[in-house]
This record gives sequence, C-alpha cells and structure tokens, in this order.
Amino acid sequence: MSAEPVVRTALRAGSYHDSVVLMQLQRALAALPGVLDAGVVMATPANRELLAASGLGSEVVAGPDDLLISVQAASEPAAAAALAAVDSLLRVRAAGTGADYRPRRLSTAVQQLPAARWVVVSVPGRYAADVAEEALDLGRNVFLYSDNVPVDREASLKRKARDRGLLVLGPDCGTAVLGGTGFGFSNRTRRGRIGLIGASGTGLQALLSYLDGDEAGISHAIGTGGRDLSAAVGGITASQALDLLRRDEDTDVLVLVSKPPAPEVTRRLLGEARAAGKPVIVCFLGAAPPGGGWGNVWFANSLEEARGYALKALQERVGASPPTTFSTGGRWVRGLFSGGTLALEILLCLGAVLTPVYSNIPVTADQRLPDPLKSQGHTILDLGADEFTVGRLHPMMDFDLRLRRLRQEAADPEVALILLDVVLGDGAHADPAGELAPGIERALTEARAAGRELAVAVLLIGTAADPQDLQEQSATLERSGARVVRTVGELVEHTWRCVGERPRDPAETALAPVPLEAIRDTRAVINVGIETFAASLAAQGAEVVQVDWRPPAGGNEKMAALLARMKR
Amino acid sequence: MSAEPVVRTALRAGSYHDSVVLMQLQRALAALPGVLDAGVVMATPANRELLAASGLGSEVVAGPDDLLISVQAASEPAAAAALAAVDSLLRVRAAGTGADYRPRRLSTAVQQLPAARWVVVSVPGRYAADVAEEALDLGRNVFLYSDNVPVDREASLKRKARDRGLLVLGPDCGTAVLGGTGFGFSNRTRRGRIGLIGASGTGLQALLSYLDGDEAGISHAIGTGGRDLSAAVGGITASQALDLLRRDEDTDVLVLVSKPPAPEVTRRLLGEARAAGKPVIVCFLGAAPPGGGWGNVWFANSLEEARGYALKALQERVGASPPTTFSTGGRWVRGLFSGGTLALEILLCLGAVLTPVYSNIPVTADQRLPDPLKSQGHTILDLGADEFTVGRLHPMMDFDLRLRRLRQEAADPEVALILLDVVLGDGAHADPAGELAPGIERALTEARAAGRELAVAVLLIGTAADPQDLQEQSATLERSGARVVRTVGELVEHTWRCVGERPRDPAETALAPVPLEAIRDTRAVINVGIETFAASLAAQGAEVVQVDWRPPAGGNEKMAALLARMKR
Repeated sequence: MSAEPVVRTALRAGSYHDSVVLMQLQRALAALPGVLDAGVVMATPANRELLAASGLGSEVVAGPDDLLISVQAASEPAAAAALAAVDSLLRVRAAGTGADYRPRRLSTAVQQLPAARWVVVSVPGRYAADVAEEALDLGRNVFLYSDNVPVDREASLKRKARDRGLLVLGPDCGTAVLGGTGFGFSNRTRRGRIGLIGASGTGLQALLSYLDGDEAGISHAIGTGGRDLSAAVGGITASQALDLLRRDEDTDVLVLVSKPPAPEVTRRLLGEARAAGKPVIVCFLGAAPPGGGWGNVWFANSLEEARGYALKALQERVGASPPTTFSTGGRWVRGLFSGGTLALEILLCLGAVLTPVYSNIPVTADQRLPDPLKSQGHTILDLGADEFTVGRLHPMMDFDLRLRRLRQEAADPEVALILLDVVLGDGAHADPAGELAPGIERALTEARAAGRELAVAVLLIGTAADPQDLQEQSATLERSGARVVRTVGELVEHTWRCVGERPRDPAETALAPVPLEAIRDTRAVINVGIETFAASLAAQGAEVVQVDWRPPAGGNEKMAALLARMKR
Repeated sequence: MSAEPVVRTALRAGSYHDSVVLMQLQRALAALPGVLDAGVVMATPANRELLAASGLGSEVVAGPDDLLISVQAASEPAAAAALAAVDSLLRVRAAGTGADYRPRRLSTAVQQLPAARWVVVSVPGRYAADVAEEALDLGRNVFLYSDNVPVDREASLKRKARDRGLLVLGPDCGTAVLGGTGFGFSNRTRRGRIGLIGASGTGLQALLSYLDGDEAGISHAIGTGGRDLSAAVGGITASQALDLLRRDEDTDVLVLVSKPPAPEVTRRLLGEARAAGKPVIVCFLGAAPPGGGWGNVWFANSLEEARGYALKALQERVGASPPTTFSTGGRWVRGLFSGGTLALEILLCLGAVLTPVYSNIPVTADQRLPDPLKSQGHTILDLGADEFTVGRLHPMMDFDLRLRRLRQEAADPEVALILLDVVLGDGAHADPAGELAPGIERALTEARAAGRELAVAVLLIGTAADPQDLQEQSATLERSGARVVRTVGELVEHTWRCVGERPRDPAETALAPVPLEAIRDTRAVINVGIETFAASLAAQGAEVVQVDWRPPAGGNEKMAALLARMKR
C-alpha cells in the first residue's frame, strides 16, 4: 500500500469552542492510527490559508464562525475513522477539566468570591467587552487578555473605569504582575523596588526576566494593552499606572515601555512622568527619543538599556524631586539659533512636550513654519539655514539679523520666553555677548514697561581657552537679564519649567484615584475564559473562581441579537 | 523738525563683495549722522523680504547678483549724504585689510607655502567647487566652508579625493580641529583621546565645549558637511574619517554625530564602526536608534548622552576588540517570534544593518511582507499578530504554527539562520523546549544532509523561579543544536556576526588610505575667502597664506562663461 495520502474535512457550523479544546482535539486527531497530520481551526480566510500551506486545505464552503476540521491520512478509511471520532473527542475534552461546581454568571462568581478585586477576561474578542463592562459594573478591576475588541469599546470601558477608580488592563494585555501575582503570561520575579508599565506582554516579560537575573526584582508590572497610548484611548490606563506607582511606597523607580504613543499622549505622559517625584525610565521602541533625558526622566533605546538605567537609578536615587515650575506672562517660546544642530536638538526635545511647534528645519511635516520671517506658536529657528545666509555672513559672525528678530519677537505680547545660542571660539564674533546684551536688556525693559513678564535664556557654547573669555561673556549676558545655561539639556529643562504642560492635579480633575489595594491585593481572582490562566493563578496561591462562560445563544450571532432585543 | 523718516536705496549691479565688507559697510552707514538704520545685502528675494521686515524695503528692480543698499534716515539730505558715501566706504573697507603681498592664484600660494596640506575655501558657493577641485589637483586636502555647492559636485569632488588619499571636509563644513588647530568655527579644546566626527558645525562645537568642561579633551574633530551621509554622496568623508581615527594612535574612543543618514549609508557606517576595534559612540539626532548598542558601538540620543558615553568608554575601554564573524551557508535570516515586542526590537535593530528586511509588523513601509505565509529576504515575523491568532491559541501556548513554519523556512536553501523566542512563565506552555527541540533538530539534520550549513538561535526569556525550569529548558534547546541567548542584544549580535555586512578591506577596494599626516600636520594652511578664518589660524600659530581671490570676470557670470569658452 503506497497510495497517495488523502485529505478529508468536516465542519461544525456556528459552534463555540475554547481554543485550548481545539488544540487538544487537533493533537488527538493527529495521534490516531493512519493519520499523518491534522488541523482544527475557526474557518477564517487567514486560517484556511494556513491550512492550505500545510497541505490540509479544502474547498468546503464555510464562514469564520464555523469550525473546520481537516485530516491528512494514509488511507480513506483512516481519514473517515478520524473524522467520525471528532464529536466524541470534543465531548471528552470539554468535560475533562470541569470538576467542581462553577458559576455560569459573573455576578454569581462575585457573590461566591467577594474578596476578588480582579476579573481576568480571555473570551473571544467580540464577547470580551461585554464581560469586562459587567465586571466594572460589579466594581471589579479587569485584566482583559482578549484581542480583537473594537477601539471605541476600549475607550468607553476605560473612561468608565477611570470615573470609578478602577483599572482596565488591556484589551490585548498579555502580562501583569500585581502584588506578587502574575496574570496572563508572566514570570515569577523576585520582589524588588522597580515598577514596570508596559503596553505589550513580551516587553514586560523580557524586563521581568532581565531584572530577575540582575537580582533587582520588581514591585509591580502593569500592562495597559497595545492601543492604550493611541489618540483614541488617550493613555488612560498608563496615566493611572503612573499615578499608582508614584504613590506606591514599594516602588522607587518606574519604567515605561511601549511603541511610540500618539504625540498628544506623549506630551501628557512625559509631563506626568516629570512630576512623578521618582526616576522614570521611558522606552518608546521605534521612536526618535527627544534627547537623553530631563531631570528624573531618562530615555532608553532598548529594553536592555531601560534595565540598565533602572538599576542605575535604583543605586543613585538621582533626579527624584519634582521640578519647581515658574510662569512667565505669555505662552510661546521663540528660539533664535545660529547653530543648526543646536536648533535641531532643541526642536526634537520641545516637539515632544510642547504644541504647536514650528520651525524652518521641521522634523515632522506639520512643524513647517509657513513664513520664516513670521513666528507662530512655539517657533524654533535656525538662522544659519540657507534662506537666511545667501550673500550674508553666518549669524555666528554677524548679529544684525538676530538682533532685529529678537526685537520683533520681544514685541509680541504672547511670547513668554526667547531662546538664543552664543557660540564662542575661533572664527566666531570677537564679542558676541557685547553685541547681544544691549538687545536683550532693551527687550526685557520694554516688556516690563508694558507690564509683561518676558524671559530670555542663552545657551553658551565655548571653552575656557576660547579667545572671547568665557567667564566674561557669561557675566555680560547675565547682567543683561538673561538666564545663561551651558547645555541643550539645561535649556530644555528651563524651557519646560517655564511653559511646559503642567500635570493636572487629581483633585482638580475630580477623578477617582485608583486605590493602592487594586495592585497590592490579588489574593482572590475571578477567571472568565482560558482555564490555564486560572490554573496559573491558583498555582501562585491565589483563590480563583472559574466562570463556566458560554457565548450568548451558544455563539449563534443571530440568535444572540434576538435575545438581546427581547431583554430590552 | 519732526518729519517722517525717509527710506532711500542705491544699487551696485553685478559686483562681488566679501560678506565681511558688506557687514562693515552696513555698520558704517548706520553710524553716519541722521541715519536711523541701514541694510546692505545681495538682492535675493529672501534678503529683500528681510529688508522689508525691518522697514528698509524698496521697489527698485534688482537681481540676486546686485548689491542693494538701503538707508532709513531722519531727512532727505541725510539719506542722500549716506548713499553718496557708499563707494568711498567700500573702497576703504576693501583696501583696509590688504597689507602684505598676496598671491591671486591658488597655485602660486602652494608654491609660496609648499608645507600646506590644507586649503580652506569659503568663497561663494557657485565658485567654491572649482576652487576645491583646483586644491585637490594640487594634492591638497580641502576644508570647504562654503554652502550652496551642488550635491553632484560634492560627490565628484569627494570621489576624486578618495581616489587620491585626500580629504574634502564639507561643503557647508563649519568646524574641524585637526592636530590641535581649529578650522572655521571651532573651540580651543584641551588635547585628549576622544576623536569626533560630525556632519555639522555646532554639533561638534557643543561636544568640544562639553568635553573640555569634563577635562577629557579631544584628539581630532573631523567635520564632513551636512550632506556627506546622503545617498548621493554615500558618506565618503565619514568613512575616511572613521578609518583615520581607527588608525590614529592618539584616539581611544570615537564619536560620530549627524542627522539620520540614508539607510544604505547607515548600514555601511555601522559595519565599519563595529569593526573599528575601538569604542564608537553613534548619535543620529532625530532617528529611532536601533537599540542601545552592540559590542563596541553605543547609540546616544543627544550630544550630552554622547559625551557621557564617550567618558564612560574612555574610563572602561570596553568592547574594544572587533568581533569575529562566522559564515553559514545561506544568506537570509528568518525570525519566528511569539512575542510582538521582541520581534519589534529585533526588527528595529536588524533593519538598520541588513537589507532587505520584511515583516508582518513593518517599521517602514518598504518592510511590509506582501504575504505573511511566505518569507522573502530577511523576514521577521510576529506570530502572535492578529492575522495568525484568530480562533487560535497564542503561539506561546500552541506551537503548531511555529513548528510548521520552522520546517518551511529550514527547507529554503537560501536561509542561513532561523531565530526563535521561547518565553517561559505562568500562562505559557508547560514545556516549550520539549515542543521545539525535535523540530529544531530535524531542521538542522535535514540541512546538513543536504550539504547546507543552517543555524538556529533561540532567545530564552524566563526566570529561575518560573515553573518550567529555566536551566533544563536551556539545556534541551542546546542539545537540539540551537544557540541559546538570553537578551535581544545578544541575539542581534549573533545575527550580525552570521550574516551582517562585512566592512571592506581597504586592500580589497584598492583605495588610497588618507595618510595620518593629513590630520596631524596643520602647521601651514592656505586660505581662500573669509579673511577672519586666516586670522584665527594665524592666532593659533599656523603659517597662513591668504589668496587674494576674485571671482572670474569680477563676478559677471556672462563674462565668466565667455572667458571659460575662450580658454578651451
């Protein structure tokens, strides 16, 4: 018998099965005599392509709600015998795990285990938001593992949670470690004083693994779900997590890891991180980081670098105190730079925390200043760019253009802060401070006379050996009323303190803060969905109730819609 | 007399003037009695707008080669008197600086100062390339300050320089410090053992200023010009500079700063940096860095971070030895990951050094894999992405999909290396290594049987306390023939050593290496253009000959073209 193998398929229309059950069925079929390979999938187009790629394809008509079972066997009778065993195998698998009494409804589970602050939800995406909402309505926090939840449902769930002082971790949240208990996929990590916030699962797991190896350990690891930092959701969970770990006495250093957030979310989160009063390591994988770090906020380029910075911060406890901020009269920053790279670095930094920012050397298309001769919003200018230097000396030698522009910016009542650079050294003007100081003094005097609080800050680049006399240049600029700093980082920090977004005071926003017990007390958990998650929680010592969840109307969507209408 | 101020203008058609002379004329006019303000510019549209913004605008018909002189005066007679003084002021200014005999031609200057290895060129952009080319033909290195040089001229100048073992720093090169002598705009920095390479001027100046404050100092600072790292120029000067500082015994640590290079230039430069045998700090401002660093290459997010890393590298002398590379049979890497963030980090890293790279979670549009079921080129897959997980367990629990894909990739004779991740912990498969190892072993055995050298590397994420037994999982994977690593950085390093671009051997490319004397011997310099540069060089102790350069035909372009035709 060396006949060609045969492929035969069977269908179970519109029925719901737990993914674990499907995996087990596939293995059981593949182990039957004469069966060479088997596939058991919900018949989505993608899954059918995957089946076909393994030589298990079929032409049978089926939809995404149908269960497609395909076997490749050495002979026709072996294939037929395998398919005939499907229903009995499914029954065995489904019954195999159900030992004790299990509530069918979440509300019953909550009555059974009232100490449970958390509900783990891993049912299929189209049902998951309803289960999560029910949990919130029952006053419980939600670990929402399920994916394929619509983003508007995510946003409304998280707004509801925020209003009630609850957390929704996810959807598509793979990992959390709260109060020493791992949720979803998680690693058993020694307890320590580093708190993690991550959008994704394996980002957190890699950090858990690294930090455990370092013998540093973690206090908590809070997953937010991959879309939390999108504009649609607005980083609600990440903000709650920052606030929790800021208040948590067991946490000394925070690490925030995610793909690049939406710009407006980045601005708010960085403001909150800056005000956290603890070191915060930020790793936005795939984004150009806005500098090396400011104050207590450090930007890492990789998970390993984040780990290194966290360990360093833990040892040094640096930059922990929140910055004092101060206010000037206007709103806008205007930077008039002679150095292109200095202007670029400052634009990169300020573009991440201020809005709107314009420039003649824009980093993003929306930053392009329409008319280089007229500033608008926050404006950072490279006055050494070609459009300003044709037939003219570089602004490091000729200050005429800068002095005129300084006067123009200072006359704008909406301007709060003017930034300048002075670059000393060979080739440059013999006395830059002498040229600029009278202009600065005049600008400040005129603003004061008009009842405005204008400020000027100068980035002074040079060495003690430079021909201009560094100390004297610095003193001249300071006498004119300017603040003098020596690095881009200091200039950015100063700017942020003048005009940066202030983190909102929780009292002011009237939001219910999440009680710290939410992340500390994980003795009791309710699980809805994948049963291995319940087993893991129990193995870690948590008291767990598994809900014997079934989709409405057994997964038949039309019937479910009918039932929902009848309920109203 | 409280009459309105009057604005009057004069024109000098098609005449060439040094920018310093124009600045001095403007100041002299503004200082005349009754004059309130003055502007002296080449009449480009941008400059005329700038004049108008200062209340010095005029409707006079003029072109970009015309000199436009505008005065604002308290009275008509004062304005008239000022404009009447223009020619005599111009004569005074132009004559004022010419004391000694000055050669009119570069070739004469070279005869006069044969020890000069360098020619500084700062004449207007449209003439600068011709002067630079003449210097190269005379066997001299060029510091090309001028901007507005066409990019194709830059590329051809640099190719000529490379073929002859010469350097062209620029065009638009603001700064260099070679052998202790500052060129263009530069700071007097203590001598030390950090060598700098920078596209831009103020990027280098900021580093000079920072490192001098740190009392570390520099060996050399080599400017390349802002377009050197573009695809059109191909980073010729940056490569020469890396090679020079690699060979230079006075340099222990290298720092490379620029805006983000073209992708193909990034790949080559990172390969050369990795092979430099010294620590190299890379700071591409505004680009997402491909990780925290690999081996001797560290990625900084800001100039201050670059400074910090350079100081650290100087103290620790870490990662100095160049990596050994090894070769496998095929060409392509195929990554089959269950963790999305792990896949993303690896894609970010490998995308910077390998080409072409495809993925189902592309970072750039050209990385999108057309068919997720078929790999092509280097491919990095997130098998936990939605298209693979509808109605199916996550690949951290169910290895069926990965094992099938592993077999598929291993059968491709062009594949050199397969990357996998194994994430241990609660919620994950109870024995991932037990599932994967037989598949890995079979893949390696079949490849060997077919006479191919296939390799498999596994990134193992987990802690010693995880339920799966970390040591045992690692041992099982190693027994299957896989290389096991514990961090993304190690996996990337391993991959690069298998399939990364090899830096070309200078002998192989038959290029003339630039002699180290080019950056060490700056006793004698020839200056063509802005005279203050000559004064700065002389003040630093260099012997300088200033060429009394005039544009061909006095700046009259038509006449110059006619003269050029007559020469042929």
